[in-house]
Amino acid sequence: MNRKELFQNIKRKKSFLCIGLDTDMNKIPSCLKEKSSNPIFEFNKAIIEATEDLCVAYKPNLAFYESLGIEGWKALNETVNYLRQHYPDQFLIADAKRGDIGNTSAMYAQAFFEKMNFDAITVSPYMGEDSIKPFLAYPNKWTIILALTSNKGALDFQLLKEENTGERLFEKVLKTSTNWGTEENMIYVVGATKTEYLKSVRKLIPEHFLLIPGIGAQGGSLEETAKFGLNSQCGLLVNSSRQIIYASSDENFAEAARSEALKLQQAMENILLQSGIM
Amino acid sequence: MNRKELFQNIKRKKSFLCIGLDTDMNKIPSCLKEKSSNPIFEFNKAIIEATEDLCVAYKPNLAFYESLGIEGWKALNETVNYLRQHYPDQFLIADAKRGDIGNTSAMYAQAFFEKMNFDAITVSPYMGEDSIKPFLAYPNKWTIILALTSNKGALDFQLLKEENTGERLFEKVLKTSTNWGTEENMIYVVGATKTEYLKSVRKLIPEHFLLIPGIGAQGGSLEETAKFGLNSQCGLLVNSSRQIIYASSDENFAEAARSEALKLQQAMENILLQSGIM
Repeated sequence: MNRKELFQNIKRKKSFLCIGLDTDMNKIPSCLKEKSSNPIFEFNKAIIEATEDLCVAYKPNLAFYESLGIEGWKALNETVNYLRQHYPDQFLIADAKRGDIGNTSAMYAQAFFEKMNFDAITVSPYMGEDSIKPFLAYPNKWTIILALTSNKGALDFQLLKEENTGERLFEKVLKTSTNWGTEENMIYVVGATKTEYLKSVRKLIPEHFLLIPGIGAQGGSLEETAKFGLNSQCGLLVNSSRQIIYASSDENFAEAARSEALKLQQAMENILLQSGIM
Repeated sequence: MNRKELFQNIKRKKSFLCIGLDTDMNKIPSCLKEKSSNPIFEFNKAIIEATEDLCVAYKPNLAFYESLGIEGWKALNETVNYLRQHYPDQFLIADAKRGDIGNTSAMYAQAFFEKMNFDAITVSPYMGEDSIKPFLAYPNKWTIILALTSNKGALDFQLLKEENTGERLFEKVLKTSTNWGTEENMIYVVGATKTEYLKSVRKLIPEHFLLIPGIGAQGGSLEETAKFGLNSQCGLLVNSSRQIIYASSDENFAEAARSEALKLQQAMENILLQSGIM
């Protein structure tokens, strides 16, 4: 999917919501576990069917699938295939936070862009250019670079200020990496819990899309994020995982997920209208 | 495996060699692909049988297995199970470079320490403390933190100097993370291509083990690494992957791998004797 198509989907759906499929065997409704031999996929399928008209992207986090071993990878594959077949306009993000030396990152790119048909993958910038370039070699695929994450540990290194320039590490990551790709193939992670830095992010990368985690369970604000993060093509994908997918642990879990997703979609519709983007 | 046992294995085998099982379907001998329905595992098994007395650790890099999808994960599982069953004194490192927000890193820890029985996993420090702590919660398991990697991209961010302190990012990672664990459960990656920094690494963390990639194909020197990196308990695991496992692409590949591993083991034996560690 290219940037223009992503923006068209946002306008059509009046939403820049990404739903995180952080599917945890310990948190899915017990009714599903009793009924199905493949509860992870069945849970994802039910969540997708209940929410697909309200969001433009789904983001499975790999950790949840890997923790189940081969069964988890099978459920992930099934989820991706199901989405591709039934909802081909969804933007599919592998939240994998990968990154290794060049020849090895090329294998990760193969895993997520060829073996599985994701549109995008999250990567860690710590190992620099050659760890990220192999992902950027794929046309119409996206590399989502961690810049300023939503967790407490973000404060440990990402805000470190550089001698002479006074630039913070995440700013250095933004500036340096804009030489590696363009706004047509790179997105950055900026946590909704760090909106005070969104202004300086937008100064450095006015045009790029941002993937914003941290709304909901982690305490970030959608309005603050939109205030400082929106650009003329929306430029935001706001993720919510737990708040939506675990809205209820009863049989009505999919309905409850829809209801939470709808609240966010409606807030996003207002934001898009008020900002004049739509 | 604890630190004492690791050091005992090093003395018994007169080796601090780690062999990287970066098994690439495009590089394994064609004779294996013709004969076996499971060539990745068969290749690993042959390499292990030919080298196990010469090394103290094996390190599969996850990217190579993920690039093959579910078949790759099956081959990885089989390799780990085979090593556990036949060579229980080998230190098994998942070279996965994972790291995510706390509750998600806990799922990765579960994947690699519970679902698969690895001794250690490599992690990226970019997301800070809560991304690494869940791995450290496992007794007798090890977290291997990227500090200064062997690739060219290491120069992009890892050497950045902090305002006021003048500390480089990798030094900050070393200093900060020593508050999270001890030399009994943390190891650091320092590339053999960056030996000029090993002195300052050893000033900050004299007692920790280091995992040293970059010998061989990447151009690092074993002697230089030993000169600045050794401590009283050896303190080094030096990895070699391609130079050993792809020493030959003919039927004699395992023999050729042994011959390359033997050269490194003999050089290591000399180093251990000359330094008075043995």
